[in-house]
Amino acid sequence: MSGNSFGRSFVVTGFGESHGPAIGGIVDGCPPGLPLSEADLQHDLDRRAPGQSRHTTQRREADQVRILSGVFEGATTGAPIGLLIENQDQRSKDYSEIATRFRPGHADYSYTMKYGRRDYRGGGRSSARETAIRVAAGGIAKVCLRHLQRIEVQGCLTRLGPLELPRPGEPGFEWAQVERNPFFCGGEARVAELEAYMDELRKSGDSIGAEVTVIARGLPPGLGEPIFDRLDADIAHALMSINAVKGVEIGAGFASVAQRGTEHRDEMTPDGFLSNNAGGVLGGISTGQDIIARLALKPTSSIRLPGRSIDLSGAETEVITKGRHDPCVGIRATPIAEAMLALVLIDHLLRHRAQNAQVVPPLAPIPSQAP
Amino acid sequence: MSGNSFGRSFVVTGFGESHGPAIGGIVDGCPPGLPLSEADLQHDLDRRAPGQSRHTTQRREADQVRILSGVFEGATTGAPIGLLIENQDQRSKDYSEIATRFRPGHADYSYTMKYGRRDYRGGGRSSARETAIRVAAGGIAKVCLRHLQRIEVQGCLTRLGPLELPRPGEPGFEWAQVERNPFFCGGEARVAELEAYMDELRKSGDSIGAEVTVIARGLPPGLGEPIFDRLDADIAHALMSINAVKGVEIGAGFASVAQRGTEHRDEMTPDGFLSNNAGGVLGGISTGQDIIARLALKPTSSIRLPGRSIDLSGAETEVITKGRHDPCVGIRATPIAEAMLALVLIDHLLRHRAQNAQVVPPLAPIPSQAP
Amino acid sequence: MSGNSFGRSFVVTGFGESHGPAIGGIVDGCPPGLPLSEADLQHDLDRRAPGQSRHTTQRREADQVRILSGVFEGATTGAPIGLLIENQDQRSKDYSEIATRFRPGHADYSYTMKYGRRDYRGGGRSSARETAIRVAAGGIAKVCLRHLQRIEVQGCLTRLGPLELPRPGEPGFEWAQVERNPFFCGGEARVAELEAYMDELRKSGDSIGAEVTVIARGLPPGLGEPIFDRLDADIAHALMSINAVKGVEIGAGFASVAQRGTEHRDEMTPDGFLSNNAGGVLGGISTGQDIIARLALKPTSSIRLPGRSIDLSGAETEVITKGRHDPCVGIRATPIAEAMLALVLIDHLLRHRAQNAQVVPPLAPIPSQAP
Amino acid sequence: MSGNSFGRSFVVTGFGESHGPAIGGIVDGCPPGLPLSEADLQHDLDRRAPGQSRHTTQRREADQVRILSGVFEGATTGAPIGLLIENQDQRSKDYSEIATRFRPGHADYSYTMKYGRRDYRGGGRSSARETAIRVAAGGIAKVCLRHLQRIEVQGCLTRLGPLELPRPGEPGFEWAQVERNPFFCGGEARVAELEAYMDELRKSGDSIGAEVTVIARGLPPGLGEPIFDRLDADIAHALMSINAVKGVEIGAGFASVAQRGTEHRDEMTPDGFLSNNAGGVLGGISTGQDIIARLALKPTSSIRLPGRSIDLSGAETEVITKGRHDPCVGIRATPIAEAMLALVLIDHLLRHRAQNAQVVPPLAPIPSQAP
Repeated sequence: MSGNSFGRSFVVTGFGESHGPAIGGIVDGCPPGLPLSEADLQHDLDRRAPGQSRHTTQRREADQVRILSGVFEGATTGAPIGLLIENQDQRSKDYSEIATRFRPGHADYSYTMKYGRRDYRGGGRSSARETAIRVAAGGIAKVCLRHLQRIEVQGCLTRLGPLELPRPGEPGFEWAQVERNPFFCGGEARVAELEAYMDELRKSGDSIGAEVTVIARGLPPGLGEPIFDRLDADIAHALMSINAVKGVEIGAGFASVAQRGTEHRDEMTPDGFLSNNAGGVLGGISTGQDIIARLALKPTSSIRLPGRSIDLSGAETEVITKGRHDPCVGIRATPIAEAMLALVLIDHLLRHRAQNAQVVPPLAPIPSQAP
Repeated sequence: MSGNSFGRSFVVTGFGESHGPAIGGIVDGCPPGLPLSEADLQHDLDRRAPGQSRHTTQRREADQVRILSGVFEGATTGAPIGLLIENQDQRSKDYSEIATRFRPGHADYSYTMKYGRRDYRGGGRSSARETAIRVAAGGIAKVCLRHLQRIEVQGCLTRLGPLELPRPGEPGFEWAQVERNPFFCGGEARVAELEAYMDELRKSGDSIGAEVTVIARGLPPGLGEPIFDRLDADIAHALMSINAVKGVEIGAGFASVAQRGTEHRDEMTPDGFLSNNAGGVLGGISTGQDIIARLALKPTSSIRLPGRSIDLSGAETEVITKGRHDPCVGIRATPIAEAMLALVLIDHLLRHRAQNAQVVPPLAPIPSQAP
Repeated sequence: MSGNSFGRSFVVTGFGESHGPAIGGIVDGCPPGLPLSEADLQHDLDRRAPGQSRHTTQRREADQVRILSGVFEGATTGAPIGLLIENQDQRSKDYSEIATRFRPGHADYSYTMKYGRRDYRGGGRSSARETAIRVAAGGIAKVCLRHLQRIEVQGCLTRLGPLELPRPGEPGFEWAQVERNPFFCGGEARVAELEAYMDELRKSGDSIGAEVTVIARGLPPGLGEPIFDRLDADIAHALMSINAVKGVEIGAGFASVAQRGTEHRDEMTPDGFLSNNAGGVLGGISTGQDIIARLALKPTSSIRLPGRSIDLSGAETEVITKGRHDPCVGIRATPIAEAMLALVLIDHLLRHRAQNAQVVPPLAPIPSQAP
Repeated sequence: MSGNSFGRSFVVTGFGESHGPAIGGIVDGCPPGLPLSEADLQHDLDRRAPGQSRHTTQRREADQVRILSGVFEGATTGAPIGLLIENQDQRSKDYSEIATRFRPGHADYSYTMKYGRRDYRGGGRSSARETAIRVAAGGIAKVCLRHLQRIEVQGCLTRLGPLELPRPGEPGFEWAQVERNPFFCGGEARVAELEAYMDELRKSGDSIGAEVTVIARGLPPGLGEPIFDRLDADIAHALMSINAVKGVEIGAGFASVAQRGTEHRDEMTPDGFLSNNAGGVLGGISTGQDIIARLALKPTSSIRLPGRSIDLSGAETEVITKGRHDPCVGIRATPIAEAMLALVLIDHLLRHRAQNAQVVPPLAPIPSQAP
């Protein structure tokens, strides 16, 4: 079984290579009767698109999405939604160099060993190009979450290499700032520093890692399917499936290793939870508090500094990645992380309804007092 | 759809509550013709079982597993394997106290809100009791991995609260030590320190978090199903689905945030990879290097120090968790993490065969030079 | 991927061989809060059990089911329900004869070729013994259907070899009669004829085929998931998965080949549908009319008349099936067919809720005027 | 969970409405390294396309398929294959008449009750238009079956209303004739009779049912996943999921009801099976004999003779289906049935490899002596 589908009840399936004629996808299971148009998806696609600032690759992709089915008279019909984005900037070039050698840190080697061959044009299926379809499908998920349950998903950059940036809830962080700079950074005071860092990095020819935080607000308690498809387990699956992600944590995450039980457990009062170390999930089920997840993105291996490698015959070689690449893939990862979190949440909302639509909880949800 | 199954080709489905008559499971998809007996599973069950040292809960569970089907004349037949473990130490007691109030940091609240009710005896389905079935099924997975491909999975404790312990490959770490102390710690010199820390902790009535590292050796390149069911994404899913886990990382993990591309990318030579920041996975597909994953476990909320909470009517209350509990659930998590990693790997080995059994890779796998 | 699970939202997974220690299963996804006890399942298990009349095998199986989890204080909790039935009548005998030769018309040959081996004791996994778990799980499905939606499922024998019996709605058919004879025949006047036929058949040592009809009443319109998981497609899957079934039809079925459009289409009036050639399904979605399905069961190959075959070395041999066998497996198939239909319907009811819980249909369902 | 995907290892997912801009699909799990081009798919698309003779609808659909991904340098890469067919003949017309009333025998009513709305343009998702994607995906499956295992799938018309036509293996049947007439009839002598029957029918304004037979040759023994995903159960699922199908049978099918065990069981000799009542499947697993399946197709309800119905307000109305429609949808069903059978077989071939790739059967497959 291949793995190009995500979700059980709200299922996105994708296809497409970096330099083929188009990428596309199908969203199956979307509830009917929700207002939807291509414009709803375009905003996030534009946020993800490269070439929006000097800090991302200068490759131009219009990323104009077409909805080919499943919407009629302005609303979803319950039929599968076909999505298509033409690849426009397929610069014709000579791929012979990377066709026969493996770029270190890339999927060239592992794809070739798995399938016996690979589409080497621009990385083929392993290119981050496919994330545009995640973002388009995630846009549909966001519409559903908003209409069915007033759930909102939002992300931001919280670390760029050595620079620790303010996290949501921390001093100096404002959600309103996130969309006002090309880094999705919530700390206005830090933007100049980020620009300087990236300018220096770009000159060096090297790349850097990043950390993105993504949260969801307005969740009802009850989402998540223990024991294996816990909400946090599916979030980890979703975020770790994004190109370049090497780590995922929920709530206090790795910091909980050094916490004591008295410190970590989120106490409850009739007025709400007093903290949110859990990140909104207990026993794999949402508590109604904000979902908080963080992901670590590695520095891209597409750099122009030479690296040691081997070729298809196994002989030693050296590889320099030419072309236009992001020096920090984490910068554009925020809308992708939001999309994946939204896909998990809508999937679990529908899964929850399947088994539990008839349940009336014994208690009204309690609020969060966490900052 | 509920979530009590894991895997696509090698599928484990579990059932059972902490204080019901039995827990059990079914493994479907096990390749036929492999030698298997209950003894193969018992070793890991014993490693997971509580009551093996003074540092874990004194609850006694014999955890004697029975194989009810799928094995004939000493070998697997390809039919589903039924597993059953009777619950022996169901101490009859008065649950009325926790029946009507939510223990802070536990799944009591989220289960009740999801299902409208909960089996409150000893945590019911949310109890870590269910992990015994993961370990039994993981034992079958280990047998398969060993026989089909000589893959070995092994784990160890690499951090206990504030105490950072040697990791595999680091000075002071020996795999041979891991099974010689009750902590699964690979650093012999640190065991006394761990014992002292735990003794002090137990007296305080509090609990502590931990970090476990789990690795796999002998993997062929090629396992993993992009773009959503990447090998690392499924590992993240599997490990995050374990009780108390709040974070998962692969290879360099969160440390890759501060790395540069020249530092992170694992260069290749005809003699092998020169490092393993990738943790054995590139583009979601195994490279043949060791798989390296780490998980963060929170401190258990089952502590005897009182915590603020609410009851079923929403009124304020205070909760003290009585009974016998682990002050550090991370200590017994090593065999569980191994089991989950083994389940992911056998599942992906079979998934890979489905699509690619006919593929001859163009190159012999290259080895690892990483420490 | 093996195939021992059925359903997507309400999933039953089974295990167990004919002559192993036990058979069992897990039902995952059962809605919480429904009253359930072992007694609810026992009635159908008794209807399926052999040895109830001289017309079925004299093998005695108490088929006492135990519920091991998922039920607390008399109601389902939403956790997976573990089911276990001990195999009691494992008559120890010499299997060496069938261990090395393939009974013609049995699964001996195909299992051996697939898995390289087989559990030859009493047919192993290919024995109809496993249908007891289908019936137990189907019993849970019936409880859910009744409580959530007042849906009832019922079956009957409508043909025994050459004897065409009255079908539901036809003259001479009464549902009340079905449970009053060992054949599940709705035509009281035909029972003596059936007894005589079976007595003669038993003496001859041969076996015979049968047709069973199964219906569901009280369905809401809207169940079924086009285009592949249409309600009728999943019913066909479910019924064809029963041992010995060679054909399935819905509504007019194969008779629709010779019908004209004016004859087949079920016209509608404000007072309801005027006929039910569709068998309750249009476009793969329930219409609210009764679901009507029929299945053809082949004559069992377990007969004492010798048949030509080969052995494990490929050499010619002759096989006589000894032991106690049903001369017409179709007789006991009625509760199994009911169970499978119930499993499909509850699964689709939950699947429908996942996507469409928020839908208010524009029209109240119209009734059926069909006989 | 919606149902627009089919298969577990070789998965086709489809989208598209009759009168939207395009229909399309994704095939995930296709083995890499197989030669594939659009031309391989076009032949079957042309066989399915309407307007090829006066006996099918005169609607013109070029059905030109584009492969958008997953193929590189003339061969499959293992990445998902995106398929797209533009809808060309979307005759703009006034749909107001059927927008508010339900055509009897159509899915108009059931879709509206399920989703609360429907895309009424030409039947929307419930139109047989979607079967073009089944045929395209089935074409890929045929290529895989041929290259991996030399399996061939072929179908023919075996009954048109009252006219019983020769079946494969019967006197008067020749496979070579099937492609030489617009009916896919293997009996050359009967073609004139079919033409006369259809001409008369067309004049009457009515429609008629049909039976199609589909077979597969060259199967290895061992395909099929008991106990639920038996090969025959998945075939039944696949064929019953085709528009207008009301019945499916395997091998002797419903005729086995009246057979005795001595007659039905297929005896075996070292030279092969002596008959094929099983239709190539025993215990849900292929035997190596030809797979034989038959499907019953109802007469289309799209006829110009008026029928009684209701409108969206529940009031009485009369419906006449205008436009260009097939008087016998069964005629064009042959390539669709072939496609679905091919999809089941490739899916099971890959599923079988997942679990059993390492198995060496103890015996060489025995041939078939059946006619």
